[in-house]
Amino acid sequence: MRDVAVIGVGMTKWGELWDKSLRTIFVETALLAIEDAGVDHIDSMVFGCMSSGLFVGQEHLASLLSDYLGKNPVPAARVESACSSGGLALRQGFIEVASGLSDIVLVGGVEKMTDVTGCEATYALGTAADQEYEGYHGLTFPALYAMMAVAHMHQHGTTREQLAMVAVKNHDNGSKNPLAQFPFRITVDAVLNSVLVADPLRILDCSPITDGAAAVILCPAGMAGKWKKPAVRIAGSGQATDTIALSSRKDLSWIESTHIAAQKALKMAGRKIEDIDLFEVHDCFTIAEICVTEALGIVKKGQGGRAVEEGLTSLQGKFPVNPSGGLKAKGHPVGATGVAQAVEIVKQLRGEAGARQVKNAKRGLTQNMGGTGGSSLVHVFEAE
Amino acid sequence: MRDVAVIGVGMTKWGELWDKSLRTIFVETALLAIEDAGVDHIDSMVFGCMSSGLFVGQEHLASLLSDYLGKNPVPAARVESACSSGGLALRQGFIEVASGLSDIVLVGGVEKMTDVTGCEATYALGTAADQEYEGYHGLTFPALYAMMAVAHMHQHGTTREQLAMVAVKNHDNGSKNPLAQFPFRITVDAVLNSVLVADPLRILDCSPITDGAAAVILCPAGMAGKWKKPAVRIAGSGQATDTIALSSRKDLSWIESTHIAAQKALKMAGRKIEDIDLFEVHDCFTIAEICVTEALGIVKKGQGGRAVEEGLTSLQGKFPVNPSGGLKAKGHPVGATGVAQAVEIVKQLRGEAGARQVKNAKRGLTQNMGGTGGSSLVHVFEAE
Repeated sequence: MRDVAVIGVGMTKWGELWDKSLRTIFVETALLAIEDAGVDHIDSMVFGCMSSGLFVGQEHLASLLSDYLGKNPVPAARVESACSSGGLALRQGFIEVASGLSDIVLVGGVEKMTDVTGCEATYALGTAADQEYEGYHGLTFPALYAMMAVAHMHQHGTTREQLAMVAVKNHDNGSKNPLAQFPFRITVDAVLNSVLVADPLRILDCSPITDGAAAVILCPAGMAGKWKKPAVRIAGSGQATDTIALSSRKDLSWIESTHIAAQKALKMAGRKIEDIDLFEVHDCFTIAEICVTEALGIVKKGQGGRAVEEGLTSLQGKFPVNPSGGLKAKGHPVGATGVAQAVEIVKQLRGEAGARQVKNAKRGLTQNMGGTGGSSLVHVFEAE
Repeated sequence: MRDVAVIGVGMTKWGELWDKSLRTIFVETALLAIEDAGVDHIDSMVFGCMSSGLFVGQEHLASLLSDYLGKNPVPAARVESACSSGGLALRQGFIEVASGLSDIVLVGGVEKMTDVTGCEATYALGTAADQEYEGYHGLTFPALYAMMAVAHMHQHGTTREQLAMVAVKNHDNGSKNPLAQFPFRITVDAVLNSVLVADPLRILDCSPITDGAAAVILCPAGMAGKWKKPAVRIAGSGQATDTIALSSRKDLSWIESTHIAAQKALKMAGRKIEDIDLFEVHDCFTIAEICVTEALGIVKKGQGGRAVEEGLTSLQGKFPVNPSGGLKAKGHPVGATGVAQAVEIVKQLRGEAGARQVKNAKRGLTQNMGGTGGSSLVHVFEAE
């Protein structure tokens, strides 16, 4: 397998983009990445999108997006793994370059979520759960994560305030990210007094509905020096699945697929979790970030709540988590999130992250998951 | 890149499977392939599905299918390229094994299409066209292919009877395939007198709505001798895109993406089209097979109608096309079709195709496309 590097990144402002269609959002972002890399062609495209069928009534994105990007007949593949579709696209692009089949691969992620009503969006997102055993009984994602939160509080003494502190931390970081959907700070009181969605989770514990895209350009690490920006190597890639239904898990508060995917990615990179300088993780709900910091091994099982309270995962902490603002403040266009995490890590490792720059960042890790952790993708990045 | 071989195949009876769900259909088929190969484990799964979101209200198939197959935490990826989702899955699996990342990869395709009304199915299939420029003006796939047929008849003198002969040939072949949805013969008169769908295409020019799945097991060719069945090598893989909207094409009767994908696959295999003994191609409508035989180079441009009339593409002809019965008689569960084509080629190259066996078959080719040819996948297979 060839070593693989990221040589360009692109992301536009995320939010409720009612004046833009899915194809427009994708093309604008892809062009930014192509320009950032300075490549004169691409050999192949892979992109993640969770449910363009339910959100905008359009499938066959391979043809649509290569067409609107003006890249026909370049091969294009769309991949789906619910909210980890972007992470899966990164992995598939990584494999394609590593294999030797293609040299310059555009990896993108996109989701247009605001062209439907709130109920329709909730239904579409619910298709990441087991529709026959969860959806048909009325369970939605806030409800599923609420059960995980209750289990975590019961087993480990995690407090309602600690959950809120995840949102406060990520909005602190997001206030420094001009591309974030909600680039402003909030307080613990604001979270605790916000509308209850699914007890104990309140609206400010939840990531938003977002339109957006993100893109990166990959090439063999051996060729990366040809292009204009410093290369960032993808040192490790790990993927794992778990039961789709939460009811089949042994432990409601533990995300096994992330644990396994992280072990695989770190093993491939020849690193330990302590070697990583910053993390972009899947905080679709505040409880998710707490569970993920444990599954990655940043802290021991049950210590995720305390970690955020003690500042371990803040921008100035020992293990900064979600310097971009995370899904909570940056937004969560589901198919784009996994790629946007890579965009942030690359910007950080290049020293281009502005007010939210993590000092001396040499190695970063992304963790992206689908559903309640039915699928997880973890990637390790290193500055060349 | 490592050489890649198919060491196991699986397919169950296709049709209107109202007593089975998507997950059941997939798992039954995957288990057949695993048993056929005799492997004791799998390292990874890739499968194609066009629109489980619109057909059954379920995304996140990576988690769902690995879970129901009892394979958690094995990595699983779902890919989508409309009706060529299965072919794309085959290519992604091929790349993964070729890269060295995984040894034993299960490649599957599945679609459950009959749990919705006819109108809903037509809408779901229509998402393979450009929804903003084609779908919203009322165009459906029979209408799009009808325009291609009219153009072909106008430019090349192709006759209404020649279109019918494609369906008759494929039903002849399909009558010998016990797994086909419609395993019986039809006549030219039956086609010409069947209900008009979109002039000049009649109902017997159209492939049906089908529930079904197909699966193959891949491994490095160097390890293929370990397993119980003769290995079939994937000698070439080609992929290309074209404009999603038919209105943007230079020539309505020519499928450029198939032409390019075939050239790539044959080049990788070091073969010419004359070296191929049999073909499984994407006859979603009778006109499609005619266009595809031309784009592949089996006959010259404009000669596809004459080729079927003269028997060139019949089971006993020089270039047998769709010995399985094709999409027309075997059925067309859209995401499964590309993988089922590979299943047929492998059975033929192993000499296991029974009454429809092509004599002395050493090399086969599959061609799978999305929409009106917005994406195409071509693979070349050779008996080891």
